[in-house]
Order: sequence, then structure tokens, then C-alpha cells
Amino acid sequence: MRANYNQIAGQSVERLTALSDGVFAVAMTLLVLDLRTPAETAIHGERDLWNAIVLLAPRILVYLMSFLTLGIFWVGQQTQLNHFAHCDRHITGIHLIFLFCISLMPFSTSLMAAFISYRLALLIYWANIFILGATLFAGWRYAMHAQLVKKELSADFAAAIEQRIIVAQTLYAVGALLCLVSTYWSIGFILLVQVNYAIAPRSGPLSRL
Amino acid sequence: MRANYNQIAGQSVERLTALSDGVFAVAMTLLVLDLRTPAETAIHGERDLWNAIVLLAPRILVYLMSFLTLGIFWVGQQTQLNHFAHCDRHITGIHLIFLFCISLMPFSTSLMAAFISYRLALLIYWANIFILGATLFAGWRYAMHAQLVKKELSADFAAAIEQRIIVAQTLYAVGALLCLVSTYWSIGFILLVQVNYAIAPRSGPLSRL
Amino acid sequence: MRANYNQIAGQSVERLTALSDGVFAVAMTLLVLDLRTPAETAIHGERDLWNAIVLLAPRILVYLMSFLTLGIFWVGQQTQLNHFAHCDRHITGIHLIFLFCISLMPFSTSLMAAFISYRLALLIYWANIFILGATLFAGWRYAMHAQLVKKELSADFAAAIEQRIIVAQTLYAVGALLCLVSTYWSIGFILLVQVNYAIAPRSGPLSRL
Amino acid sequence: MRANYNQIAGQSVERLTALSDGVFAVAMTLLVLDLRTPAETAIHGERDLWNAIVLLAPRILVYLMSFLTLGIFWVGQQTQLNHFAHCDRHITGIHLIFLFCISLMPFSTSLMAAFISYRLALLIYWANIFILGATLFAGWRYAMHAQLVKKELSADFAAAIEQRIIVAQTLYAVGALLCLVSTYWSIGFILLVQVNYAIAPRSGPLSRL
Repeated sequence: MRANYNQIAGQSVERLTALSDGVFAVAMTLLVLDLRTPAETAIHGERDLWNAIVLLAPRILVYLMSFLTLGIFWVGQQTQLNHFAHCDRHITGIHLIFLFCISLMPFSTSLMAAFISYRLALLIYWANIFILGATLFAGWRYAMHAQLVKKELSADFAAAIEQRIIVAQTLYAVGALLCLVSTYWSIGFILLVQVNYAIAPRSGPLSRL
Repeated sequence: MRANYNQIAGQSVERLTALSDGVFAVAMTLLVLDLRTPAETAIHGERDLWNAIVLLAPRILVYLMSFLTLGIFWVGQQTQLNHFAHCDRHITGIHLIFLFCISLMPFSTSLMAAFISYRLALLIYWANIFILGATLFAGWRYAMHAQLVKKELSADFAAAIEQRIIVAQTLYAVGALLCLVSTYWSIGFILLVQVNYAIAPRSGPLSRL
Repeated sequence: MRANYNQIAGQSVERLTALSDGVFAVAMTLLVLDLRTPAETAIHGERDLWNAIVLLAPRILVYLMSFLTLGIFWVGQQTQLNHFAHCDRHITGIHLIFLFCISLMPFSTSLMAAFISYRLALLIYWANIFILGATLFAGWRYAMHAQLVKKELSADFAAAIEQRIIVAQTLYAVGALLCLVSTYWSIGFILLVQVNYAIAPRSGPLSRL
Repeated sequence: MRANYNQIAGQSVERLTALSDGVFAVAMTLLVLDLRTPAETAIHGERDLWNAIVLLAPRILVYLMSFLTLGIFWVGQQTQLNHFAHCDRHITGIHLIFLFCISLMPFSTSLMAAFISYRLALLIYWANIFILGATLFAGWRYAMHAQLVKKELSADFAAAIEQRIIVAQTLYAVGALLCLVSTYWSIGFILLVQVNYAIAPRSGPLSRL
């Protein structure tokens, strides 16, 4: 019986990790690429430049939110990958789709930055975050099922990973729903969630979200 | 007799792997860079934005196809590199040409996305995939011939790698030929092949392609 | 008691290092992306091309300055990360914010390159450098406080890291103040500081800055 | 006596290698970013698209030449770094300047691609290659002088590295001089040199260049 390519391909956790770090690094740095300097012809003095910069300020908040979002998903993916004993091609496939959605984030972000008061832009942004969470969840479930994770992993640990995704996605969904009031409320709420996850309090009710 | 630079240069498999991961990560993330937000002046309400996004939808499928293509070739190259005991400058040269063709993928992809009904755009896209397969095949043959691969590698394994490239390239060629009917048939067929390779069934006839 | 996700996430120094290297590499290479070739329609001979290139020359100095700035902060961050025994999510959060500010450098740089005689452009550039120093300082203080650094680290070493940030930031602030005379003085002064830090003398008063 | 920051900073060969791989990967992939798809409004049929692609063909040769150039310098730098026992801040500074010049290559390349018959564009391209060789040479000399290289390195090996840089730079200078005849001769000659270095013959006179 011949060797089956599918049994020997895509087994390196290390390689998947390196590719993921690369895709995240590029996506994070490209976010801001959209932040263009004002046209030189439109600026005739320090005051004009000041006004142009002030107009860019809300965009920078949006970029910060997306950067933190990417950072949080990077932590989430790495936490999973760090506990994989090995890979197979299915988990590689799932993570490739996850990375594809990561590569869409600069687009979703610049769409929301350009159309900050449009609900559709906000919902597309949220849909992007939702798919990221869903693929990460599916990847973890598959990895548990296919016994790709390290043997010493406790059931508690595995449950904590699933729970975190569910809690976070619930909060994002609440944020998205707030666009019924105003997209600014949505953005403010999601930004607060991200700041909480990135630099969270060490104790109190939020520390266990 | 003096030391020969060519005998000491380009011998690190690890370095070639790291460079390759980097080129893949950048190319994968740049694919979507072409996905521009609609001009703000053309959008006067949620409905306009919805229409603009709907127009972008087929492009996203093309990007997904290219992302999966890059992912599959990344798996293919890494499967080879993981089994190299060492490198020499010829294999480094072959893989540099492979990486050059990887860096052309965002161009081929955006050409096809822009001219989705043109056979020429589809054939250029296919030619890009074909050269990728050909350099990977040549690299493997050279590595076997120059005994760069690890000693414990079975002949079965080596044959499986060659066979996979040949089967995949045959399927891509069939996809390209379908452009005689319509370029949409070609794209649909190639997309199905890629989805099969990325997240393939675990058993049944397709599992051994 | 359930496992707490926050205690298991973001603990790999190696991953944070890899992501940081990636963000720095992309930001460094994107700096120059703004350096556009002259429009072909405006060039009718070697002389026109020469004039167009001469006009780009001051920009190249600005890019070199920013490249060295990124390089110096890369050395500064790596010097810290190399001495971390492990990470926690707070230090990961602080470094994500640091990396966000790194990703803003191509924007600050291209703003200053386009508006080289505007004080506001210079002050924004300086503010970017200041936040980088401040987050790096905060990260180090937190790491010492939370005992993330390796045990064998001497108090001298820890003090040297803090002192370097303070001295460098003082010099940058002096450079920024020089814009009261002229922004060119500021740029010249900061460029000298960066060249000193990048390829500093091995002895003499400057060697201990 | 206080610890001197300069003695503890920038000592990791591994980190410098990772940053370099990243800068090279981004620069290599950005080269081709300049290769734009034809404007959709100008294309009315397969024939128009064919003509537009034919016009792009010489550019692709220029990109291939630059990709190989970057690949060859990557091999050259890695060959040096692989034999470093440790780094100091001066060698890090020299390599940062080397990487800055690498990040200029996409600009030099796109300048030459746009003004392929202009001697000035060719000379700027050559100057970029020359500075790369000069910094690599200076870095090696400094590393030997400061005893950063591994102890087991033979004098033969060290001489081979210097000799390679000198021979290659002589060939590039000959190529640049050929622009007195025609820039196309220069490009053709340099392309042949690069192909020789990338996939060189295993014996015969060229194998020892």
C-alpha cells in the first residue's frame, strides 16, 4: 500500500505558528496603511494641518480597536497552538480559513473607518469578528476530537478556552446590537471590551470574563 | 586549495523555511489589499453601501481561492523542507524562483478578479499555478538526486510527494481547460479542488487525491 | 474552581518575540513604500529624472532616520524580551500597544516627510517616539514588579535599561524643542542621536549615553 | 560601576536573523506590488488584455532580476550570520543600515522598471547594489576584527566570503558600465550574473565565481 500524502502533509505545529505570526504581523501593520497623509496642495499652514489631523483622529481609534482585536485573536490562537502536540491537514485547513479572515480585517476596518455611521459597515465588521471566533471554536473542537492536543492538558483548561470564546462572542454580539441605538455606541462598547481583554484588571468581576 | 563560497553558502534549511514563511505570509495578506473600500462620494445611504458590497462579493471568492492555493502550496513546500537534512545553493536557487512565483500570485489574482470573464486572465492565473507546481516538482527531484533529504525517508514517501503534485496539476489543467466553456466553470472547479485539498474528507475516493 | 483563561493565555515569550519581529520588519519595509517613482509623463530626459530624484533626496534622509528609530526601539524591546522568563497577559497587552505605536511610525514619518517645515508634523513624530519610550518603560516596570524577568538579572542591569530610556527620551525632547528654531534643526539633531545610538563610538562620553 | 546598556543590548544573533528574514520577505513580496492590473476601462476584449500584458512583460524580467538580487544578498547575509557566535551593537547597527538599503530595493527596482532606457535609473539601481555589498563587506570585516565569529571558522572560509563580495561587485560594476552602450545590455548582463549566482553550474569556470 502506497504512502498517503495526506498523512504526511501539514503536520508541523511550528510551521503553522510561524505562518500565523507572519500573517498577523502583516495584517496588524497594514491596518494603518490606510491612514494617508493629507494632500500637500490642501495644506497652506500649521492651522490647516491641525484641522486635517483632527479629522483623522477618530480613525486612529478605529485602528487601535482593530489592532487590539487582532492582538486578542492572536493570543487566542497561540494559546491553542501552544498546546497542540501535532497537526494534521484538517486543522491546518481550518487555521488557513481563520488566517484568511484575519487578512480580511484591514478591509473591514477601513470600511468601518470610512463609513463610521453606517450600520452595514459595523455589521460587516462584526461578522468578520464572529467568523474568527467561530473558526477558532471549530478548530479547538476538532483538535480535541482528533486528539491533537497534548496529553497532559486538563479538562478544565479545555473548557476555559471554549468558555472564553463564547463569552467574548456574546459581548461582541451585544456591541453589534447596540448599533440599533447608534454605531458610535457599538464602537465604544467593543473598544471597551477589547481594552478589558488586552489590559484587564487582575481581580474583580471583569477579571474572569 | 581555497575554500569555495558555493560550498558554504545557503545551507541552512531553517533559514530557507523562515524566509518562505515570511514570503507566504506577506503574499497571503497582500492578496486582499486590492479589496478597496467604495469611494465615500459615491455612497449616499445604507442601500448604496449594500449595493457596493454586493458587487465586491465575487472578488472575495477569488481571494479565498487564491488564499487556499497559497496555503496548499505552503503545505506542499513545508512538507518537502521538513524532510531536508540540509540545503545547497542549487536547491536554494530553485526555491527562490518558487518564491518569486508566489510573490506574483497577488498580481495574477487581482488580474483575474478584475477580468473575471476573460480567458486570458484565467490562463495567466493557471500558468502561475503551473509554474509553482513545476518548480516544486523540480526542487524535489533535485533534492532526491543530490541526497539532500533525510536518510530515513522511505521511497513510498518520496513517491507520494511526486504523485500529489502530478494529480493536483492535472486537476488544475482540467479546470483551466473548462474555460473553453466559461471562465466561471474554471473558477468554480478550481475552487472545489482547493477546498477539497484544504479541508478534505477523511475517507472515500477524494481522500487519496 | 474552574481554570481561568487569563492565567493560561499569552504566556509565551517566544511568540511575542516572533510577532514583534514581524511587525518591525513590515513597518521598516513599509516606511519607504511611500517613496514613489516620478510620474513617467513628467520626465522627458535624463535631466528631468535627475531633478526629480534630487527632490526626493531629503525624504530618503527622513526614512533613514525613521528606520534607525525603529531599529533602536527593536533593540530596546528585544533586550527586554530576551530577559523575560515568561509572559503574562498584561505584559502582552502593554507590548501590543507598543507594537500599535510602531505600526503608526510609517504614517508619522510620511507626514513629516511631506510637511518637513511644519512644527505640527514634527511634534506628532516626536509624540510617536515619546509614546514608544513610555510604553517600553511601563512594560519594564511592570515586568520587574510582576517578577517576569529572569532571576539571575542584576539590579544594575535593570537600572541600565530604565536609564537608557530616560536619557534617550530626554535627547528626543531636546530635539523636539529645537523646532522653536527650525524643524530642520530638530531633524538634524534627532538624526545625529539615532546615528550615535545605531553605530556609537566605543569609548568617550557618547559611549555611555 | 554601573552596568552599561551598550554592553547588554543587541546581542542576539537569532533576533537579528529573524528581523532580517522578515525585512527580506517583505521587500521581496513588495517588489511586485508595483505590477498593477490594467485599468478596466481601457480593456474591451481579450486582444486588448493581451496587448496590455505584453507591455508588462519586460517589467516582470526586471522584478525577477531584483528578486534574485535580494535572494543572493539574503544568502550572503545569512552565510555571515550563521557563523556569528554573538552580536554586539555595532554589528547590529551595520546590519540595520544594510537592511535599510534592502528596503530601498523596491524603489530602485520600480524606478528602473519605469525608466528602463535611462542611464540614471540604472546607475541608482547599481548604487543600491553597491551599498549593499559595501555594508556586507564592512560588517564582515568588523565581525572578524571584533571576534564575533565562531572560533572554529577557518581563515580560508573568511577569505572566501570577502572574495565572493569583491568578485560579485566587480561583475555588477562591469554591468553598470555597459550602460555606456545601452541600459538593456546592462540589465541583460546583470540578469545573467544573478541567474548564475542563483542556479549556478556545479563545475567549470563559472562555478567558482
